[in-house]
Amino acid sequence: MTAPLRVLAVCGSLRQGSMNRALLRAAIELAPAGLAITFWDRAGELPLYNADLDVDPRPEPVASLRAACADAQAILFVSPEYNYSIPGVLKNLIDWGSRPQPDPPLKNKPAAVMGASTGISGTMRMQYHLRQVAVILNAPMMPQPEVILPRAVERFGPDGRLADDSTRALVKRFMAAFEQWARLHAPAPRP
Amino acid sequence: MTAPLRVLAVCGSLRQGSMNRALLRAAIELAPAGLAITFWDRAGELPLYNADLDVDPRPEPVASLRAACADAQAILFVSPEYNYSIPGVLKNLIDWGSRPQPDPPLKNKPAAVMGASTGISGTMRMQYHLRQVAVILNAPMMPQPEVILPRAVERFGPDGRLADDSTRALVKRFMAAFEQWARLHAPAPRP
Amino acid sequence: MTAPLRVLAVCGSLRQGSMNRALLRAAIELAPAGLAITFWDRAGELPLYNADLDVDPRPEPVASLRAACADAQAILFVSPEYNYSIPGVLKNLIDWGSRPQPDPPLKNKPAAVMGASTGISGTMRMQYHLRQVAVILNAPMMPQPEVILPRAVERFGPDGRLADDSTRALVKRFMAAFEQWARLHAPAPRP
Amino acid sequence: MTAPLRVLAVCGSLRQGSMNRALLRAAIELAPAGLAITFWDRAGELPLYNADLDVDPRPEPVASLRAACADAQAILFVSPEYNYSIPGVLKNLIDWGSRPQPDPPLKNKPAAVMGASTGISGTMRMQYHLRQVAVILNAPMMPQPEVILPRAVERFGPDGRLADDSTRALVKRFMAAFEQWARLHAPAPRP
Repeated sequence: MTAPLRVLAVCGSLRQGSMNRALLRAAIELAPAGLAITFWDRAGELPLYNADLDVDPRPEPVASLRAACADAQAILFVSPEYNYSIPGVLKNLIDWGSRPQPDPPLKNKPAAVMGASTGISGTMRMQYHLRQVAVILNAPMMPQPEVILPRAVERFGPDGRLADDSTRALVKRFMAAFEQWARLHAPAPRP
Repeated sequence: MTAPLRVLAVCGSLRQGSMNRALLRAAIELAPAGLAITFWDRAGELPLYNADLDVDPRPEPVASLRAACADAQAILFVSPEYNYSIPGVLKNLIDWGSRPQPDPPLKNKPAAVMGASTGISGTMRMQYHLRQVAVILNAPMMPQPEVILPRAVERFGPDGRLADDSTRALVKRFMAAFEQWARLHAPAPRP
Repeated sequence: MTAPLRVLAVCGSLRQGSMNRALLRAAIELAPAGLAITFWDRAGELPLYNADLDVDPRPEPVASLRAACADAQAILFVSPEYNYSIPGVLKNLIDWGSRPQPDPPLKNKPAAVMGASTGISGTMRMQYHLRQVAVILNAPMMPQPEVILPRAVERFGPDGRLADDSTRALVKRFMAAFEQWARLHAPAPRP
Repeated sequence: MTAPLRVLAVCGSLRQGSMNRALLRAAIELAPAGLAITFWDRAGELPLYNADLDVDPRPEPVASLRAACADAQAILFVSPEYNYSIPGVLKNLIDWGSRPQPDPPLKNKPAAVMGASTGISGTMRMQYHLRQVAVILNAPMMPQPEVILPRAVERFGPDGRLADDSTRALVKRFMAAFEQWARLHAPAPRP
């Protein structure tokens, strides 16, 4: 029997009622059994990245993030688009996770991205910026399927749960493909 | 006599010895008399953007940022490139400045961007992402000249001052062009 | 009385029934009187760019393109998105227009871009790539309004005419804004 | 014994003395024995993409391109940067290769990109645009190492051969990594 793959999930929105937080919960719910997903939900506790502070002992949430990244075999990004790009919140998390060189914990891990927006972009503009970021992380990013959800408000129920059936099917297909992608690229499990 | 144009300068690096902070100081030093540049140096004090907190009364540094943006007639971005994109620090500042809709203070202002890197990119990858962000801000971004400074360490003296003559000339030319660009686009001065 | 501004329009699709060609016709129809728009519809006759051929005498369509660019005071791009970027057809036209250095005819002209797609992107991915191209052309690109038309088939009538009223209003507003933008930036008229 | 992997190489420059053509020759020379690379050097013969012509019988060079793509197990892009993006020549080739839907020949193939420039960008701006294009092709793009060669003229000898030792070592390392990447992702060989 194959052990589940450890996936670290992070989210670019801190808002409690966020659609993207709901999307992330749906992704966890709809994931295949082969993925063990942990949502590291402390992005809002990180300090803003400052290289002068990037020395031991690092602030506690940074240490926690680093440990979570190091432990993960794959990364799942779920995020809104802010101002036609990656939210500062998420980018700040990545900036901490990608230090120090040359072997930062957020590196060499297969990854995937999804997002939902109220407007027409479906977070497209965020996702292609994040794909560029993935190059420096040497993170193989799953090309397809893409989960780009424009005008997404109506896809979620009044309880904030992803309710739309075709979207649920897409997310399920995405997560199944992500397991395959992640297994293909994942570093060997820890002994 | 024409009043100087009020320019708000912001920086994507919090590190005290940062080359980009030095570049920003050089930009202020080499700017024409027609630009009155204020460096809002509190990016590191902002909370991480959270829409749940984006209601009055906002945290004090947010209010200060909003006032500084509202007062400015043009914006100067000076930033490193982090992970092939905009530093989270700078993006977080922009995320705060661009709220609330429909009339956020960081909107409709002419802008320009410059940056220096130790590596070969010269912050190119940050700059083109920032140019995309400028579209949603409805900020006319000066197309040229570009100040993209690869392998920049040697351009700065041991005291951290921009020392290289040709780089100084380029920054001077950039700032002169920025005055022209900003005057063409600037909102009328406050009465 | 102010002379109309000479605008060169180009299109990234060669297909006769193209929605984007129809969108370009609508843009001409809905433009203010202050814009005199010429559609240079010979993109399909250009050779593929080859620096070895970029010497006098250049192939005839290249000479025609260069003359059309040189004569124009502003440029309007209307294009589909092909493979998440600029169509090769349009990029090839730009590659010819941007040569030879240092004073190519397709340079220093204010510009704007619009596009329609059958899918959800509305040509977004093409437009942000084109905005990056505009930087090297030193072309001030109008930031807003943006005309990004996803799922656009239903916006056009069976005769291929842009039929949807709200889209027509958006295009009209876009063209009025473009006149303002172009006049602000346009090179002085030829004597 | 493992059969060599069939790699299709394409180039964005038609100029005979092109550095990028020389870089492609060097890539072939320095490739490991496990890669059998074919340079499809007919990009300049393709018509400009026109959906009205994209029906059988297609123009001969299109049929040849489609056959070459279908036969390949991986794709190597070597290209200059034109106007801060992908050359029209190369984009046009991709536009033909990616049609017709839903199973175009240039799809689902692992890929990599390299480039050299006379200026400071090293073709960076082309490469990130091409990486975005790869998403729609569902082409897993090798993230690292990157071959980005700024100020590249001095790296080539008077005979046009890649002469610089450290660049040769980088290209060799890139090609070795590409074999691994391509084998990981390649479709099963034809029976």
